[in-house]
Amino acid sequence: MKPEEIRFASGALMTDQYQLTMAQLYFRLGLHETKAQFDHFYRSNPNYGVHKAGYCINAGLGSILDWLDEVVFGEEEIQYLRSQKSSTGRQLFGDDFLNWLSNGFDAKAINLFAMPEGRVVHPNVPIHVVEGPLGVGQIIETGLLNIANYQTLIATKAARIKQSSRGQVLLEFGLRRAQGLGAIMGTRAALIGGADFSSNVGASHIFGFPPKGTHAHSMVQVFMGLGEGELAAFQAYADIYPDDCLLLVDTIDTLQSGVPNAIRVFEKLRQKGHKPVGIRLDSGDLAHLSILAAKMLNEAGFPDVSIVLSNDLDELVIWQIITQIQEEAGRYGVEPDHLIKRMVYGVGTHLITSTGNPALDGVYKLVAINQHGEWVPTLKISENVDKTLNPGNKRVWRVYDRRGKATADLVALQGEDVLNQSPLELCHPSMATKRRQLAQDEIDHIEKLLTPIILDGRRVYEIPTIEEMQTLRQADIAHLDPGVLRIMNPHIYHVSLSLKLWDLKQSLIKKARHDSVP
Amino acid sequence: MKPEEIRFASGALMTDQYQLTMAQLYFRLGLHETKAQFDHFYRSNPNYGVHKAGYCINAGLGSILDWLDEVVFGEEEIQYLRSQKSSTGRQLFGDDFLNWLSNGFDAKAINLFAMPEGRVVHPNVPIHVVEGPLGVGQIIETGLLNIANYQTLIATKAARIKQSSRGQVLLEFGLRRAQGLGAIMGTRAALIGGADFSSNVGASHIFGFPPKGTHAHSMVQVFMGLGEGELAAFQAYADIYPDDCLLLVDTIDTLQSGVPNAIRVFEKLRQKGHKPVGIRLDSGDLAHLSILAAKMLNEAGFPDVSIVLSNDLDELVIWQIITQIQEEAGRYGVEPDHLIKRMVYGVGTHLITSTGNPALDGVYKLVAINQHGEWVPTLKISENVDKTLNPGNKRVWRVYDRRGKATADLVALQGEDVLNQSPLELCHPSMATKRRQLAQDEIDHIEKLLTPIILDGRRVYEIPTIEEMQTLRQADIAHLDPGVLRIMNPHIYHVSLSLKLWDLKQSLIKKARHDSVP
Repeated sequence: MKPEEIRFASGALMTDQYQLTMAQLYFRLGLHETKAQFDHFYRSNPNYGVHKAGYCINAGLGSILDWLDEVVFGEEEIQYLRSQKSSTGRQLFGDDFLNWLSNGFDAKAINLFAMPEGRVVHPNVPIHVVEGPLGVGQIIETGLLNIANYQTLIATKAARIKQSSRGQVLLEFGLRRAQGLGAIMGTRAALIGGADFSSNVGASHIFGFPPKGTHAHSMVQVFMGLGEGELAAFQAYADIYPDDCLLLVDTIDTLQSGVPNAIRVFEKLRQKGHKPVGIRLDSGDLAHLSILAAKMLNEAGFPDVSIVLSNDLDELVIWQIITQIQEEAGRYGVEPDHLIKRMVYGVGTHLITSTGNPALDGVYKLVAINQHGEWVPTLKISENVDKTLNPGNKRVWRVYDRRGKATADLVALQGEDVLNQSPLELCHPSMATKRRQLAQDEIDHIEKLLTPIILDGRRVYEIPTIEEMQTLRQADIAHLDPGVLRIMNPHIYHVSLSLKLWDLKQSLIKKARHDSVP
Repeated sequence: MKPEEIRFASGALMTDQYQLTMAQLYFRLGLHETKAQFDHFYRSNPNYGVHKAGYCINAGLGSILDWLDEVVFGEEEIQYLRSQKSSTGRQLFGDDFLNWLSNGFDAKAINLFAMPEGRVVHPNVPIHVVEGPLGVGQIIETGLLNIANYQTLIATKAARIKQSSRGQVLLEFGLRRAQGLGAIMGTRAALIGGADFSSNVGASHIFGFPPKGTHAHSMVQVFMGLGEGELAAFQAYADIYPDDCLLLVDTIDTLQSGVPNAIRVFEKLRQKGHKPVGIRLDSGDLAHLSILAAKMLNEAGFPDVSIVLSNDLDELVIWQIITQIQEEAGRYGVEPDHLIKRMVYGVGTHLITSTGNPALDGVYKLVAINQHGEWVPTLKISENVDKTLNPGNKRVWRVYDRRGKATADLVALQGEDVLNQSPLELCHPSMATKRRQLAQDEIDHIEKLLTPIILDGRRVYEIPTIEEMQTLRQADIAHLDPGVLRIMNPHIYHVSLSLKLWDLKQSLIKKARHDSVP
């Protein structure tokens, strides 16, 4: 794909065909400007197989806002749409509709409420709420989902890996195994969610982080091919990068060749007043090799150089590595905690693809439509009761208990006085008998979650820096119960409906079932 | 991300930082123009968990060539690289190196040999071979891997889904669950590998396919919200798209409401001389609902309208659906084969993310370096013998047996007269005792696999159309043994080394082990 093709496919036409055919239908019926409300939410936390997430880290809003700037039906887009044919060869999109797309359509003529990026989010809680003309709300669905689903997925994976690595430096190394240009957004999300740096040069620059890296096996192979060896390769690297000398030690044999050669080079660097940075291990029993390498480095007087691990890492592998170090290091005279604190993790494939759960099941659903100035809630029933929509114009609240921990997200109807309800009633979204009451003295405070981003077409929100999003993430994670944070078998965080919303939902379900009987 | 940011991150700087630091090292040592050969290959066929692939469908080359046109270090790239600092604050990349990048570097000053897109490929067989200046070969590694890994992964998944759907029309529906802009390449790969169409509007246009779609649940919800019902929604759709009327029937209740309403609308269409296209089922027991919907459609005189299925489909689910139809349809008076032939499959998440195996393990390895005009093979040993490189300047051959089936891919050294060896010796890549001999009369023909794409910096290959790639795929799949094609537990296709390559590899392993002993 050429840059102009990428631009073409990443603007207004980054959408599914049916959004456009539906928009034309609304246009023909005079419904395209009718106000509608769409909720974006995801249905379930990622389940990676043997382990699963107890929460997600929200990401994507900044990219969605950038994308909305590009959702414009210019000459090229209109010309292409005009060329589309029905199955009998007629023009599929009429000139009247195309004229509206190019002159009447404004992707930002909406109200947008959203969760800020970096915040902890939970299933079935609206993350983005779009209120605007039906034709606009429909056309922006696919792009919004694409961006929000992928970035939240990756930010969540990064948070888990960061957690299992006990806060050590996490490097995003996934570009070569990423999904084409998806890598750009993937890097952004990884940085929001838990990565400290990325190897991706272009993406790092866009997002304001210095890219990081070591060297490849090929560098050592070049020297071997030219009749020299690993030591010469390391020495050459140290000569050119004396203050950034991080050596990959497993091209030939980690303990027999790589680490001893690295130590020789580090000694020379030290003599010249430079501080070696570290070694990288990319194969073999990483925990065992880390211990033996640490022992060799300690004995050579380099107790502080980093040990960077890579090679198919994820949150479970890192957990295992740390566990093994705790059990095994002492036997070799290496202090486990000291070793754990010098580790750096380079994570590629499993972070950028969210292995085990490569897509978040985010959806974007019509929940209300405005008729004669009144919001009419809408419903979609499902055979699976958990998938039946929460209808209507809603607000979202997070309830903190006396420990200061978040204890539930409460989805209520607009206008409900949640702050002054006593006791606060929390209804399970689908099970009538599962209810919980919180007395005022059990509640520390209640936080309103959705932030106005666009009001009447005007941006009222400045996207924070990624560092600020990282701070939000850390604060929100600190408010989670340890059970919810567990890497395996996490507690289920309560997402509840207000009693009023519960009643509305039930009455709409009954009505829809009744109406549908022929 | 804004379009100019996407452009910045998808050109020369779509690379890992270490490629640039290594390139500077080669530059400093005067090795940057030394000729080197890199092989791109993948190590193992996708393993999706309970099922796995016996082959891959190659895809990516066209996008790689487009990308190489953009790998240019212009003012903006150089300015950014000049701003990078070492850990002590010195300029990381010297002006001499940056000057070479902007004036001496040419990403296309290489020889490139490759497998055409759409062809069946196997593990450890070179798919792209880059021969060129060491500095260039290194810098283009990451982008080439990014493109080739993802597209081959998705083309392979598409081929499997197409196979299990017995060649019925396959629609790619994944944009909303795709990995950001990765969707563009993902759509391309899906079309090469097995999808007939995509819902992605922009990407479909780029690749020359009409986008496809139906309508969403939200359309029915709008009508319900405005006090009308599903029937009115269907009728409105039919009025506007009388020749493309495909109705989503599961918003309320598929059999009680959706299908009967669709039939009413279809009857009116028929009266007006239009041919209804079909219905779509997006929830519930898809096989069972298909049978009952088919029965109703048949009885109403619509035995030919399509039944489009969607909702978490993949090759196993489709297999199960077809099996269930075969077992169950007869009981309802529906002819199973007739029903199977009217099905269309819309596959989203599991195709665009290759669920179960979301990344192909493609690598790009230095295999030879040119010294004084001679190619010196290079090696990287691994603890895992299967991961030890096949060194040297090689050629790849596909051997067809008397049945006309491909029986092995043979990796040999350049200059070996494979066509006239009798018997042809096929060595297992790592196990010394696993050998196979083919007499001339057991061989139908031997095909040379790698095609020259760029020679001495000049493009000598025209990228075929995607339709032509689809034809290549169909031909190659027809040449696979049914055992290799199995969706579950496929036979392992033979990838063999020539005896000469085997001997070279063994001698280099011995030498490297010997040299590395301190």
